[in-house]
Amino acid sequence: MATLSDIGVSAAINCLSAILFLVAFAILRLQPINDRVYFPKWYIKGIRDSPTSSGAFVKKFVNLDVNMYLKFLNWMPAALRMPEPELIEHAGLDSAVYIRIYLLGLEWNDEIAVNFSLKIFFPITLLSFAVLVPVNYTGGNFEAMKTNTTDLTYSDIDKLSISNVAPGSSRLYAHIGMAYVFTFWTCYTLYREYMIVAKMRLHFIAAERRRPDQFTVLVRNVPPDADESVSEHVDHFFCVNHPDHYLLHQVVYNAITLADMVLEKKTLQNWLTYYTNKHERHPNKRPTTKTGFWGLWGRNVDAIDFYREQIETLSKKEEAERERVLNDPNAIMPAAFVSFRSRWGAAVCAQTDQSHNPTKWLTQWAPEPRDVYWDNLAIPYVELKLRRLLMAVALFGLTFCFMVPIAFVQTLANIEGIQKVLPFLKPLIQMGSVKSLIQGYLPGIILKIFLILLPTIIMTMSKIEGFTAHSALETRSAEKYHLFLLVNVFLGSIITGTALQQLKQFMNQSPTEIPKTVGVSIPMKATFFITYVMVDGWSGVAAEILRLVPLIVFHLKNAFLVKTDEDREEAMDAGSLTWSVSEPRIQLYFLLGLVYSTVTPILLPFIVVFFAFAYLVFRHQIINVYCQKYESGATFWPDVHRKIIIGLLISQFLFLGLLNTKKATNATFFLIPLPILTFWFFKVCKGRFESQFRRFPLEDAMKKDTLERATEPNLNLKLYLQDAYVHPVFKGSTEFERLRVADEEENSQLVATRRIVHRRGNQEVQQDSSEDIMGISAV
Amino acid sequence: MATLSDIGVSAAINCLSAILFLVAFAILRLQPINDRVYFPKWYIKGIRDSPTSSGAFVKKFVNLDVNMYLKFLNWMPAALRMPEPELIEHAGLDSAVYIRIYLLGLEWNDEIAVNFSLKIFFPITLLSFAVLVPVNYTGGNFEAMKTNTTDLTYSDIDKLSISNVAPGSSRLYAHIGMAYVFTFWTCYTLYREYMIVAKMRLHFIAAERRRPDQFTVLVRNVPPDADESVSEHVDHFFCVNHPDHYLLHQVVYNAITLADMVLEKKTLQNWLTYYTNKHERHPNKRPTTKTGFWGLWGRNVDAIDFYREQIETLSKKEEAERERVLNDPNAIMPAAFVSFRSRWGAAVCAQTDQSHNPTKWLTQWAPEPRDVYWDNLAIPYVELKLRRLLMAVALFGLTFCFMVPIAFVQTLANIEGIQKVLPFLKPLIQMGSVKSLIQGYLPGIILKIFLILLPTIIMTMSKIEGFTAHSALETRSAEKYHLFLLVNVFLGSIITGTALQQLKQFMNQSPTEIPKTVGVSIPMKATFFITYVMVDGWSGVAAEILRLVPLIVFHLKNAFLVKTDEDREEAMDAGSLTWSVSEPRIQLYFLLGLVYSTVTPILLPFIVVFFAFAYLVFRHQIINVYCQKYESGATFWPDVHRKIIIGLLISQFLFLGLLNTKKATNATFFLIPLPILTFWFFKVCKGRFESQFRRFPLEDAMKKDTLERATEPNLNLKLYLQDAYVHPVFKGSTEFERLRVADEEENSQLVATRRIVHRRGNQEVQQDSSEDIMGISAV
Repeated sequence: MATLSDIGVSAAINCLSAILFLVAFAILRLQPINDRVYFPKWYIKGIRDSPTSSGAFVKKFVNLDVNMYLKFLNWMPAALRMPEPELIEHAGLDSAVYIRIYLLGLEWNDEIAVNFSLKIFFPITLLSFAVLVPVNYTGGNFEAMKTNTTDLTYSDIDKLSISNVAPGSSRLYAHIGMAYVFTFWTCYTLYREYMIVAKMRLHFIAAERRRPDQFTVLVRNVPPDADESVSEHVDHFFCVNHPDHYLLHQVVYNAITLADMVLEKKTLQNWLTYYTNKHERHPNKRPTTKTGFWGLWGRNVDAIDFYREQIETLSKKEEAERERVLNDPNAIMPAAFVSFRSRWGAAVCAQTDQSHNPTKWLTQWAPEPRDVYWDNLAIPYVELKLRRLLMAVALFGLTFCFMVPIAFVQTLANIEGIQKVLPFLKPLIQMGSVKSLIQGYLPGIILKIFLILLPTIIMTMSKIEGFTAHSALETRSAEKYHLFLLVNVFLGSIITGTALQQLKQFMNQSPTEIPKTVGVSIPMKATFFITYVMVDGWSGVAAEILRLVPLIVFHLKNAFLVKTDEDREEAMDAGSLTWSVSEPRIQLYFLLGLVYSTVTPILLPFIVVFFAFAYLVFRHQIINVYCQKYESGATFWPDVHRKIIIGLLISQFLFLGLLNTKKATNATFFLIPLPILTFWFFKVCKGRFESQFRRFPLEDAMKKDTLERATEPNLNLKLYLQDAYVHPVFKGSTEFERLRVADEEENSQLVATRRIVHRRGNQEVQQDSSEDIMGISAV
Repeated sequence: MATLSDIGVSAAINCLSAILFLVAFAILRLQPINDRVYFPKWYIKGIRDSPTSSGAFVKKFVNLDVNMYLKFLNWMPAALRMPEPELIEHAGLDSAVYIRIYLLGLEWNDEIAVNFSLKIFFPITLLSFAVLVPVNYTGGNFEAMKTNTTDLTYSDIDKLSISNVAPGSSRLYAHIGMAYVFTFWTCYTLYREYMIVAKMRLHFIAAERRRPDQFTVLVRNVPPDADESVSEHVDHFFCVNHPDHYLLHQVVYNAITLADMVLEKKTLQNWLTYYTNKHERHPNKRPTTKTGFWGLWGRNVDAIDFYREQIETLSKKEEAERERVLNDPNAIMPAAFVSFRSRWGAAVCAQTDQSHNPTKWLTQWAPEPRDVYWDNLAIPYVELKLRRLLMAVALFGLTFCFMVPIAFVQTLANIEGIQKVLPFLKPLIQMGSVKSLIQGYLPGIILKIFLILLPTIIMTMSKIEGFTAHSALETRSAEKYHLFLLVNVFLGSIITGTALQQLKQFMNQSPTEIPKTVGVSIPMKATFFITYVMVDGWSGVAAEILRLVPLIVFHLKNAFLVKTDEDREEAMDAGSLTWSVSEPRIQLYFLLGLVYSTVTPILLPFIVVFFAFAYLVFRHQIINVYCQKYESGATFWPDVHRKIIIGLLISQFLFLGLLNTKKATNATFFLIPLPILTFWFFKVCKGRFESQFRRFPLEDAMKKDTLERATEPNLNLKLYLQDAYVHPVFKGSTEFERLRVADEEENSQLVATRRIVHRRGNQEVQQDSSEDIMGISAV
C-alpha cells in the first residue's frame, strides 16, 4: 500500500509536469507564429488579424517583449473576466453550460442566480475535513489491530479513512449522518442548477435568431408508393394532414459516394499544392512522385502533371455522379426534411404521431443543418432495431473484455508482482525513488494509453446504431463511454486490484458477494485514485491547454500547404469540446468524489483542485480556441443530471455494503431510505424539467411566431428555407442551382393550383417530374 | 409430497364442485324469476322483456318444461355461436379482446385472421407430452438415487418431471431445445395476436360513432392567475395557442360533498320505499323505526314520516350546496375539459407540450365522460409525486408483509406440521380420505380467502395515487395485483413452502442464493400448483357463472324495495369484468404454464382445461350478463403483452437456475441468448405497436374529420359537446340548466367579439362573470 510520501512524490511529479505544460503554453502562446493555434476562434470570428502583417521581421515569429513572459499566468484572470451572458453570446450555450459542470463541483459566482452559491464539493470537502477526518483519525482501529497481529501495515492515509474506525463503533453514525448531509446538499445543488440551466436555455431559445431547424421536421421511413415518387408522396401526405401549416419539403439524396469523391478530390488538391509550392521554392527542379499507393512505389512521373491529371479525371467522374444522383429517382432516400409556415406547425408535427403504423412517417425535430449526420437518414425500422441489439451485445463485450488488459496493468502497479515476474529488476525497484515512481505514476499512465484508443471505437458503434445527428451521436457515445469508465476504471480498478491481493477468497466466493467486497476494498484503493486524479486530471488538463498536436499539425501545414491567407485560415484547427469523451470523464470524478466523501475524505481536495483547474482551462479554451460544430442549446443537461444521480446512488450502495461489513447492524435500516429518496428526487426533477430540454412547447412557439409576424410581416420564409437542408456536397453546385431556377419558374405558375389536395392525377405526374425529382416543392 | 392419487382426489372434488355449480346454474337460470340475474344485459339493452308479464302464475317464477332441464349444458354452444364482429358490436371491443386473452392460451378459430390458428399452450402441451414426458420418465434418476439412499420418497408425478433426469445427463439438451421452441412459439403467437388486436382496434376506432372524448382534452394544473378566473384563464390560453381549433371548455367543480349528499339521499329513499312497501302489505299497522344509527337505538318514531322528513331536510341542504358550488369561484378546480373544432385539433393538443413549465397546463386525452374519476382532477404536481412515492413504499410493504400469513397457510398444508401442532387430531388425519382432502384442497382455499380481501386495498391505493380515469385506475391496480401475485402466490409458495423442508439450509445461506433455490424447488411444488389451478381456476370460474351474490342481492331487493318496473331495472346488478383482479390472475396461469412447460409438463393439461373452461364461461357472461362501465378500445393490450413477456423471462431465468444446479455446465452458455432475444422481441413489439394503443395519429384524425365534414356539413358540434363533461350530480339539475340558458343568450351577442384575443380588460370581468362562473364558454 502506498504511503503518504509515495503520494507526495506522485503529486510533486504531476504538479511539475502540469507546471511544465503551463510554462510551455505561456511561452508558445506569446509567439505570433503560434497565434492561430492558440486563438483560432478570434480569427474565425474575423475579429483578430494576422500579427504577421506588420512590424519587424523577427517579431513576426518570436515575441521579444520580456515583460509579457513574466506575467506567464495572466491568461487565468483573463479567462475568468468574460461575464457569462457575453460568454453565451461568444461561444454558444452548449459551451457555457459545459463549463458550468465543472462549477457544479466547486463554488463560484454565477451571473443569473444571485451570487456566491457554494456548489457541491467545496462545502463537502470542508465538512468532511471538519467532521469525518477527526472521527476517523481518532478511531484507533489500526492500533487495536496492531496489538493483535504483527504483520499489519497501514499508512497515514489509511488512518484518515473509515478503515480506522472499529467495526460496530458508534462513530459510524457520524458517517451515516454525513452521508445524508452530502446527499441532500448534492440534490439541492443539482436541483438549483437544473433550474438555472433550464432558465438559461429558455432565454437562449427566446433570444435565438431565426434558424431553419425551428421550422423543419425530419420525416423518416416514408413508405414506398407504387404510383408516386418519394417527393410527391411526402408532398401529398403533408398537404392532407397539415393543410394549414405545411410549406415545403426537401428530399434526401443518397450522396455517400459523391461525398467520398469530394473528399478524395480535396486530398489530391492538397498534394498538388504541396508539389506546386515545392516547385516554386526550387524552380529549376520539377518534383516527381510515384504512381502507386501514397507515392511509395510504381513508376516515376512528374508530380504536378500527375496530380493535375488525376484531379481532372476525378472532377469529371464527380460531375457525372452529381448528375446521376440529382436525376435518378432511386438515389432519393425514403426520408425528407419538411418545413412549415410557422414554428407552431413544426412543433405540432414533431411531437405527434402521423400514421397509425408507428414505424412509418416517423417525425422528429430536424437537427441544425450542420448537425445532420447524412449517412444514417434512411434505415428501415427492423434493421434499426437489429443494429441496436447487435451494438448492445458489442458494448457488453467491449465493456467486459477490456477487463483483461486493465487487470494486467494493475498487476504492474504492484511492486511485489513485478519483482516476481521480472526478478532481475529487483535492485532497480528497491531504490526508493524508483519504487515511488512505479507505484505512483505508472498504473495511471498505462490505463490512460488504453483509454485513448477507445472513443473512436465507441463513436463508430454509435454511428452503426443509426442516429441522425452529430449531437445525438455524441450523447450516445458519452453514455457508452460512461458505462465503460464505470465498469472498467472504477469497478475494474477496485475489484481486480483487490483480486490480486484476495484472489483466493474471490475464487471460492459466490459472484453475488461482489457488491460487499467492493465496499470493503474502496478504502484500500484511495491512493490509486488519488494518483489517477493527478495523472488523468491535473496533467491531462494542462496538456489540453498546450494543444501539442494541433500546434505541430498547424506548423506542418503552414510549411507545406499554405499559399494564400485563405489556406492559412483552413490550416487552423480550432477543434471543439469533445463531449463524448470529456463529459464521462468529469462524471468519473464526480463519482470518485461522492464515493470517497464518506470513506476517505483525503481524496476530496485533489478533486476540488482538478475541478478548479479544469474550469479555468476550459473557460480559456472556449473563449479563445474551440469552435462548436453545432449548437444544441444545452439539451445534454438532463444526461449530466442523470449521470450524477447514478453516481450518487452507486456511492450510497457501496457505502451501505461497506457499513454492512463493519458490523453496523442498524446501518441498513438507516441508509435504505437514502437511495429511495434520491431516486424519487430524480423522478421529480425529470418530470419537472426534462421536457423543457426535449420538446418545444406550443406556447413559446406561438409567441415567437407572433412576434416575428409583427416585426417582419413581409418575410419570404419559403426563400429562406428552400436550400437550408441541401446535402453539403450540393452547396454551390451549378447543376443544382440551374434545376432550382427551373423549378421556381414552374412553381410560380403552380402556386394557385397547388393548394388543392391530391390535385394531380397520375397522367400529370410526367410533366411535373422535373420539379419533383428536384425534391423541392412548395404549396 | 402429494402422490398421483392425492391429485386424483383433489381433481375429483374440484370437478364435482364445478359440476355442482354448473348444474345449479343450469337450473337457476331457467327459472323466469332469475332471468334478470342471468341475462341482465339484454334487459339493459331493451331487447328482452320481463317473462313475468304473461302466462300462468306459477310459470312466472318456476320453469316447468322438463326438456329444458335435460339440455342443461346448452348454454355452452350458445356462448360460442356469436361471431366475433357481432360480439364487438354487442359487448364492446374491451370485452371481446379480453376473452381473446384466454384464447391466447388455447387454439380457436378467429374471424379476422385466417382460421384455426393454434395458440400458445395447446401446441406446447402436445409437444412437451410427446418429447419431454418420455425423456423424463425414462430418466431414471430416482431409481439411481434409491439404490444409494433408503428414505427417499417420490411420486409418479416426480417421475414425469425434470427431477427424474440425472444431473449432467445429455437428456437435458432436449429440455434446452424445447425451451427455445416454446419461447419462439410464444413470441410468434404474441406478435400475431398484437397485430390482430391492433387491427381490431383500428377498425373499431374507425367505425366508432362520434364521441365527446374524441374532441376533448383534459387540461390539468391550470396555473393560478391574479386577474382572471380559471375559466377565463383557460379560455384565453387556448384562444391564443390554438386559435384555429379551440371551440369551448368546461371547468371542473369540486362537487365531492354534493356527490356524497346525493348518495346519502338515495339510501334514505330506499328506506322510505322499504317502509312504504311494508305499510302497503299491512295497511293497518304503521311501521316504526329508531332514530339512531341504522335504526338500532334511540326513540321510536313513525318510519315513513321520519324518512320523509329526513329526505326533505337533506334536499334543502343539497340544493344550497348545489347553489354554492355553481356560484362560488373557489369551488372551481384548476382543471378543465377543453374541446376542439376537430379531432385533429384535439389530437394535436393532447400530444404536445403547452407550456415551458412541464408541470403546468398538462394535457392528455379526456377519458370518456362515464370513465372520468372526478375526485382526482386537481392534484398539484409535487403532491402527486409525493403520493406516488408513498404508495410505492406502501405497495412494497403490502407485497412483502403478506408473506407471513401465506407462510402460515403453507404450514397447514403439511400433514406432519398439523400433527405436530395439534397432536389430538392425529387419528382423524390418519384416515386416508381426510389426509388427501387436507393435502389437496385446504392450502388452495385458505390462500383464496386471503386474496379476496386484497383488490379493495389495492384499488384504494391506486385512487390515492391520483389517476383521473376509472380505466387508468383499473390498469394500475392490475399492475399492483400482478406484482403481488408474482411475489406472494408464485415465489412465496415456492420459497416458504420449501423453507419448511429446508429451513436449516436456508438460514445459513446468503439471501442472494435464492434464485437458484427457487429453480430447484420448482419441480417439488408442481402438485401444489396443480391443486391451486383446480381450486382457484376451475371452481372459481364455475362460481363466476353461478353469480351467487348478485342472485341473493337481487331477490332481497326484489322483495323489499321494488315497486315499479323501473325499480326492478335498477335492482339488476349486471356487474362488469373486474379487470384489475381477473387479468393478473390470468397472468399467473400464463406464468405457471410457461414455467412448468419445460419442468413438469403434467401441469399443462390442467392449465389448458382452465383456459378452455374460462373462455366458455366468460364468453357467456359477456354476452348475457356484464355491462362494461366504459370502453377503452383495448388500450390494455400492451400491458397484457408486457406481462406475458415478463412471465416468459421469469420462466427462462428459473429454468437457467434449475439447470445450473443440474450440473449442466453448457446450459448457461446455451440459454443466455434466450432472455436477450426475448427482451429484444419485447422492444421491437413495443416500438412497432404500442403507440397505436396510446396515441391517436393525425392521419386517422384527419380522415375522420374530413368524412364527417362531408357527411354532416351542418353539424352543431358546440351543442353536442356543451354538456358532455358536466359532473354527474349536475346532470338534469334545473339550476344548472337555467344558468346555461342565460349563458347562451349572452354568448350569441358575444360571438363576434370573442374571437379577439384577450379582448376584455379587467373592468369588464364583473359584468361577464355570470357566464364564466358557469364555466361554459365558447369562441
